Parts: sequence; C-alpha cells; structure tokens
Amino acid sequence: MDRAVIIGLGLIGGSLGMALKRAKVKDLEIIGVDRERDPAVKAQRRGAIDRWERPSDKLFADANLVIVATPILAMREVFESIAGALPAGCVVTDTASTKAHVMRWAEELLPSRVNFVGGHPMAGKERLGIEGAEASLFNGSTYCIVPSASASQGAVETVVGLAQTVGSTPYFVEAEEHDIMVAGISHLPLVMASALVAVATRSPSWREMGRLASSGFRDTSRLASSDVALSTGISATNQTGLIRWINGYIEVLQEYRDRLAQDPEAMEASFTEAWEARERWLSEQKEGGPRDKALDEIPSASDRMNEMFFGGIFTKLRRRQDELEKGDGKRSDDRDR
Amino acid sequence: MDRAVIIGLGLIGGSLGMALKRAKVKDLEIIGVDRERDPAVKAQRRGAIDRWERPSDKLFADANLVIVATPILAMREVFESIAGALPAGCVVTDTASTKAHVMRWAEELLPSRVNFVGGHPMAGKERLGIEGAEASLFNGSTYCIVPSASASQGAVETVVGLAQTVGSTPYFVEAEEHDIMVAGISHLPLVMASALVAVATRSPSWREMGRLASSGFRDTSRLASSDVALSTGISATNQTGLIRWINGYIEVLQEYRDRLAQDPEAMEASFTEAWEARERWLSEQKEGGPRDKALDEIPSASDRMNEMFFGGIFTKLRRRQDELEKGDGKRSDDRDR
Repeated sequence: MDRAVIIGLGLIGGSLGMALKRAKVKDLEIIGVDRERDPAVKAQRRGAIDRWERPSDKLFADANLVIVATPILAMREVFESIAGALPAGCVVTDTASTKAHVMRWAEELLPSRVNFVGGHPMAGKERLGIEGAEASLFNGSTYCIVPSASASQGAVETVVGLAQTVGSTPYFVEAEEHDIMVAGISHLPLVMASALVAVATRSPSWREMGRLASSGFRDTSRLASSDVALSTGISATNQTGLIRWINGYIEVLQEYRDRLAQDPEAMEASFTEAWEARERWLSEQKEGGPRDKALDEIPSASDRMNEMFFGGIFTKLRRRQDELEKGDGKRSDDRDR
Repeated sequence: MDRAVIIGLGLIGGSLGMALKRAKVKDLEIIGVDRERDPAVKAQRRGAIDRWERPSDKLFADANLVIVATPILAMREVFESIAGALPAGCVVTDTASTKAHVMRWAEELLPSRVNFVGGHPMAGKERLGIEGAEASLFNGSTYCIVPSASASQGAVETVVGLAQTVGSTPYFVEAEEHDIMVAGISHLPLVMASALVAVATRSPSWREMGRLASSGFRDTSRLASSDVALSTGISATNQTGLIRWINGYIEVLQEYRDRLAQDPEAMEASFTEAWEARERWLSEQKEGGPRDKALDEIPSASDRMNEMFFGGIFTKLRRRQDELEKGDGKRSDDRDR
C-alpha cells in the first residue's frame, strides 16, 4: 500500500484528493491533514480522502508522497514541522501560486533524503474551501512543475503522473520565470479587479452607479472576490514581479489616456490591437494546451497513468516489495494496465 | 395601426424588435431600416421586424415611434436625414452608450414638433449583429431614460413603456450624470481589459505566458473583445468622463504599488476593502433592480404594459381614431387589458 498525505484540505487539496480517488489508483491510501477538524471531517465525508489524521511523525514515516496544499504563508512552517519525520525517497510537492519562495524554503528546510518537486495547478474557482472542491477542477488545466535541483527523475515522474492523473497537462518551468509570468496573467488581473472595485465604490456617486453596473463590471471585477489570504500570500511572495507588471500596466493606461485626450477616435487603433491579440490567444487556446520539450522526453500515455504516477521511486519500492513478497504477481500486473 | 421604425438592425435594434414582437403589442407594425441589405433581410427572417424598407420620407411620415439603434457616431447623420420627414408628435429615442452628445444632436437637428427621449438599454453581449439578437436580451436589465427638455409627458411614458415591454427597468437620469457614471462602471472596464491584453501580449514572454493564462485572465480581459466601433464611439463621446476615471484608477494602482513595495502583507487591507465592497454590491444586486422616485410617479404595472407603451400621444391618437371609426370598441378594450 502506497500512502499519499494531503496537508491542507481546502479547494485545491480537497479537489486533488477527489481527482485521485476518481482515477482509482491501485493500492493507494490518501490521508488528509488539516489544522482544523471541520474541513478534515468534510473531506472524508466528501470522499476526497480515505481518512483524516492528526499530524504525527508516525503518519509521515510511511508517506511516499506529501502534497502541501496549505496557504503559501503557512508552508514554511509546514516544511519545518514535517522535515524530521519524512522517510528517505519521499516525494514532497506543493500547490502554491508562486514558486521562488517555496523552492527556497524547501531547499533550506527539507532534508536531502527527500525529493522536492514544486507544483502549481493552474485552476481555481470562487467557491473556496472543501465545499467548493470537485474531482473535475483540474480537467484541461495546466500544471506547472518546478523540480528542485536535487529531485530524482523518479520524483519528477511522480509529480508528472499526479498532474496527468488529475486531468491536467504538466508544464515544466523555472521558479523565477514562473513567478514573473503568472504575475502578468494572474496576479495583475487580481490587483486590477480590486483596484476597479476600490475606485468605483469610493466614488460619492457609487450608490447610483452600483445600480447601473452590469455584466461588464461584474466580470472585470470578479477576481476582487478571490480569497483575501490567497491574494495576500501572492503579494508577499511575488512582490517584485507584481510591481513590475503594475508599472507596465500603468504605462499602457497612460498611453491610452494621452491618446484619448489628443484624438479620441484614434483609440480605434488601441482597441483593434487588443481585440486582435485576444482573438489570437483564444484561437490558440482552442488549438490545444501547452506542450513542452522536457515533457516530450518523459514517456506518457493516458493508459499508463497508474504506472506514471508510481514511476521512479514508487516503481522501485514496489518491485523490491514484490520480490520480498514473492508469488504475489497479481498486484504488479494490475499496476501495468 | 401604430408604426415603430427601428433604424439600425444590429444586436440592440434587432433585440428590441424581437422583444417587442414577443410582447405581442396590439396593432403595432415594426418596420426595420438598415444601411445594409443583409442585416435587414436577416432581421425580417428572424422575426425582429414585420418587414424592412429602404428609408423614405413616406416611411417616416406615418411613424409614431422611431428607435435609432445605429452606432453612436452615425446618429448625427441619421437625425439630419430623418428630421424633415418626421410627423408632429412623433417620439424619437436612441440606444447609444453615452447620452450628452446625442441629446445635443437631437436638440440641434430634430424639429420641435417631435419629442426626443434619449435611451440606453444597459445590456449587451459578445456576439454582435442581428445574429446575436434575442428577445430576452433586456430581461432584468436597467434602461436609462434621458428625456429632452421639450419632450411631452406622453413621449416619456412611451419610452418607459418600451423599456418595460422589453423586460427592462426604466431609470431616469440626466445626460451628464449618466455619462460620468457609465464611464466608471462600463467604459473604464473596457479600457482596463484592452490595456491588460496590450501589456501582456506586448511582453517578449507572451508566447509562454499565453499558454498559462486561464479563467482569471479570460474574464478580466473579456471586454477587450467588444466591438471596436462601439468602443471607439464611446471614447469619442465620453472623452472627459473616461479620462477622469482612468486617472482615478491609475491613482489606486499607484497606491497599491507603493503599499506592495513598502509592506506586501499590508495588501491584505486593500484586498479586504475590495472584497467587502464587491460582496455588498452583489447582495444589493440580488435584492432588486434600481428604483427611482420619478418612476414611482408614473403608473406602472406589468398587466398594463400595452397601455403604458401607448400611453400619452399613442393613447390620444388611438382615442381620436376610435371616435372616428366608432363602434369599434373591441380594440380599445384589448388595449386596456
């Protein structure tokens, strides 16, 4: 029996559990850990985990995979508290929205006998917590994977397998590159939406304006309803990238404003540029998800997902175990299907 | 038989026609006019109008209601070209996104024998043109109504009736107030979305970033896919309001950026402010649409919609006609239902 421990049973942790259970990975027990009892009980009831436990050295001693899905600002402490208990060869991954800080904490705090592979499943929704969790959350999404310098090939394959098993497409990227890119496409929109709500609702006319605001305002401000703790964690761990993008964004707004002041009909060129660029993006999105050279090197096929998931260290562990147990070939046959 | 003429058979003009036909207003013929033949033919085929005609003095001579639903930058010319043909008492309204320019053009160009009542149905969608038109487009929306100084009470009631008949809630507002308010909740989001697409897609990393961009980027940039002609018309007719809001918005972004630079975790307060303000807005939205004192003064009930629509001049015209025709009481009974 392999053991995956999910620490933090919110939207992402809970959905990962549900997606893993949906995939019916053989001989895998999924144990959930949460700071609070309520989400843990709910996660078990919703079938996101086989059972919940209080964190203990004993629990982690048998873990093959640990998924840290807490808020990012809690991760440093989680790494510290589990470091001593993790067994040799254990694969540790996370789900945080930014990667540079997490990679640094992992290198600093986790022992060299474990393999850290950073992860960022690029999916989410407004309904937070275990209540919002669903097995299909990651379907068709991109799963950023950031291996630590010391992670084994097998550990990387395990996290690739995890991503594919939950319905996502793995995408290899460096931590710093990841953070500056998501600052533009994900964290800037968050700040934009919040700033729109702020400027509109601070207006003395807001009472009347709010009555008139409709779908355009609703969609453009949607991200202002994101989890405040998540947004704060992003600000704290992606400060430089975010500031760079806010400055670039202010420059474009100033360019638009000056054009508007000089010759408002010349805004046609600006609107056309944005319209065309967005159409191109939408059509590329339709053509298919991200591909990556590094990914092509790893053998992958959906019918081999179980094998993938337990590739590397998992497979080796299994083989040795099978040899010891002898004659018990049935389980390894199942594994190969 | 009353006659409504819709000029401009795009999304809004076509949807108004379909919503009027859905309401089965008695003894009303709806005639469509468009610069191009194709949308006119399609509008007739889709049942948005009873028939299309080429614009002629004869066509307008019998019009009781003229709805100008062309792009805003074409309206001045439309007013000029129809002014001479409009009969005394005719109600003219428009559907443009900004109101100050339109009100000025109407006052300048339309003869004093017609009643101009500006209108702005606050509904839209990405699929433009007659192809996107639907009878339910205005369901639950707000319909801004801006009577000209010289418009009769009956003319105002006619446009109120039009708004209610298509499923919208009338909302009285002054032209300048309207324009500065929609600049904040509708035109600033348009500029924001376009600027986001510009800053992201101009980045040398866009090829990689675009692969990672997901629902947050998609929603926040959605308005960048708005009709370029519409957006340009808005810029050209709401220059001052839009510049004021862009400047206010840049100030909030600078406030956020400086806070981020000083103490990124202090962004919690900014995110909380926006989160709470948006939740308040959403819950107010749920509680019901806009109400207005001026509106309460006008008798209104859904079962009297036909009467409302033909309130004022329409009713008077009808009564005189009924007297002349005599004995034909059935039609006026129908009207009162």
